[in-house]
Amino acid sequence: MTTAAHHHDRSAIEAAAMQRALEIAANGPAKGVNPQVGCVLLTADGDVVAEGWHRGAGTAHAEVDALNRLAATGSSAEGATAIVTLEPCNHTGRTGPCAEALIAAGVSRVVYAVADPGEHSSGGAERLRSAGVDVERAGGGLVEAAEAFLGDWLLTARTHRPRVIVKWASSLDGRAAAADGTSQWITGPEARADVHVRRAAADAIAVGTGTVIADDPSLTARGVDGELLDAQPIPVVFGRRPVPTGAALERHPHADALVRLDGADLADDLHELARRGIRSLFVEGGPTLASAFIAAGLADEVLVYLAPALLGGGRLALGDLGVTTIGEARRYDFAAIERLGDDVLLVAHPISSRAARDSARSTEGN
Amino acid sequence: MTTAAHHHDRSAIEAAAMQRALEIAANGPAKGVNPQVGCVLLTADGDVVAEGWHRGAGTAHAEVDALNRLAATGSSAEGATAIVTLEPCNHTGRTGPCAEALIAAGVSRVVYAVADPGEHSSGGAERLRSAGVDVERAGGGLVEAAEAFLGDWLLTARTHRPRVIVKWASSLDGRAAAADGTSQWITGPEARADVHVRRAAADAIAVGTGTVIADDPSLTARGVDGELLDAQPIPVVFGRRPVPTGAALERHPHADALVRLDGADLADDLHELARRGIRSLFVEGGPTLASAFIAAGLADEVLVYLAPALLGGGRLALGDLGVTTIGEARRYDFAAIERLGDDVLLVAHPISSRAARDSARSTEGN
Repeated sequence: MTTAAHHHDRSAIEAAAMQRALEIAANGPAKGVNPQVGCVLLTADGDVVAEGWHRGAGTAHAEVDALNRLAATGSSAEGATAIVTLEPCNHTGRTGPCAEALIAAGVSRVVYAVADPGEHSSGGAERLRSAGVDVERAGGGLVEAAEAFLGDWLLTARTHRPRVIVKWASSLDGRAAAADGTSQWITGPEARADVHVRRAAADAIAVGTGTVIADDPSLTARGVDGELLDAQPIPVVFGRRPVPTGAALERHPHADALVRLDGADLADDLHELARRGIRSLFVEGGPTLASAFIAAGLADEVLVYLAPALLGGGRLALGDLGVTTIGEARRYDFAAIERLGDDVLLVAHPISSRAARDSARSTEGN
Repeated sequence: MTTAAHHHDRSAIEAAAMQRALEIAANGPAKGVNPQVGCVLLTADGDVVAEGWHRGAGTAHAEVDALNRLAATGSSAEGATAIVTLEPCNHTGRTGPCAEALIAAGVSRVVYAVADPGEHSSGGAERLRSAGVDVERAGGGLVEAAEAFLGDWLLTARTHRPRVIVKWASSLDGRAAAADGTSQWITGPEARADVHVRRAAADAIAVGTGTVIADDPSLTARGVDGELLDAQPIPVVFGRRPVPTGAALERHPHADALVRLDGADLADDLHELARRGIRSLFVEGGPTLASAFIAAGLADEVLVYLAPALLGGGRLALGDLGVTTIGEARRYDFAAIERLGDDVLLVAHPISSRAARDSARSTEGN
């Protein structure tokens, strides 16, 4: 066998191992301060000898988990290759740094997919190299898959704030309710079911105190029969007014984890949520809170559930944004447009002001 | 050949002739007080001997046109079958009744697709039968095709008002402009091109005096390079304020046909437009006029061009509708949802209050 062919073999074996590492990473908890990471240990010949994944804050990281499992079989990791979805950490927290554990175990080669964006935990690859370990960043589509898999965790690690999804439901003319405040039938069951699925997928759900007082929302993710879904977002209430005694959200499964934030500085508030391990925040209302996130440029995704109805009047789904002239409009892209029963969901993602300028449109006229 | 087989042959021949009659009907003018009608004359053996169509108000109707052409060849219509897309009229207007002309020419059988809905012109089939002519209403898909072809004319004949299309462009939050009134870049070129195609397809285009004064619109249908399209809608201005001297719409190709209506009674105003032969009205603005048509229940179609932008503020695309509680919402169906460049077009058709009640939704909760 030529060296090139041997190298090709190794690449294919390591790519398969990275695919497997990504799969087992999903065994760990999706929510919390730590990322989902998977690790596969290979012998020098390319045989899988151990697998590990991170089981949550305070427990062994994926690499150490795999090393522990290998040790439990009585085998040595001397000369092994570690395939890991995230760059091994270089940080002593509740657990020791993985880079040191790999070096101590005698691992001779490490392949990772996603570079560690953490301020305190990065530098693992450099530490490994300095100890003579052969370190390589994986290439190709698996890196993208690994980045997408760690999407919210990566965003939080890079920006120190959760991904923010701002959602509202309105009539086709942008109203959230009729003049008397009634809004119970704006969107249909399919749209509401979609909202509950997205609530369950989020780490936390946010409303303002105005909405708590006016609507007494439960802030739970429920199925079509009103039953609680398995995953529930942590309730977050913005604003200074107290939550009324006996409010429905006191009966939320995560009522003990309720987060109160005053909303005076949303960026600061988001940092606080990130510190608590919240990587995604589903902002549900009302118009004041939604407008504040949009105006601050802190919405990573806007979900608008539009009902085929017209209401007129002054109960708007979105309030003021401080936009005085059309050039200051908050510009987005429609990432998806989906029919949900009688309604339609528009998913919008912000475009940078640079991109907005590039796509500046010609004068309309009439 | 058995009688049944012979009958089958006749049906197939007459269906083909009706298809042809529909095709040649389109040769006539699409706009104006009179419908587009086609007529094919067959011999007793099923051979096509003449074709005719209606060329516009004051000229021969399709049946008489076909009879005239046959006579010009020196042939007789004695014993012929007339295949005509619309029931022959029984009305003496600027031209004589077609029913009488067919009887006088000796036509022995008439097949028509669409019953004449006109108060003064209907009864043609009955008149023909009373003269011993074999009269049959066509069956199957061709009737639907003929009804669809005559859609706006039929609606106008039945309701004495044009089909009303209410259009606006807004940001995703329902705003038509920023706080300072600027709106020039809300939607992109694809959306604007779509608007111009729909303007050209309409008989008339309407704005309120407020829009004339604020925006000085030309109300023309234009191509991507600003050139006038072949068909131009007649400009209609609602409201009591005068059109400023030198306004752009004075240079509209149909400026001489400009219709002024005070808007005090929109149903009355629509009757007046129908009397002038206007079968479709494209209502473009502003919010006051759009809201008035919606509130009066006079919008047959709502077109909302939504830009992926958020504006906030008070410049709403739609004003008040007199809706006080959610059950009074104007309910529609999304007939089409179409991406146009960066924007999306939502086409909504009203559903009857009965249908709205039937689809009453369960309580939303939060």
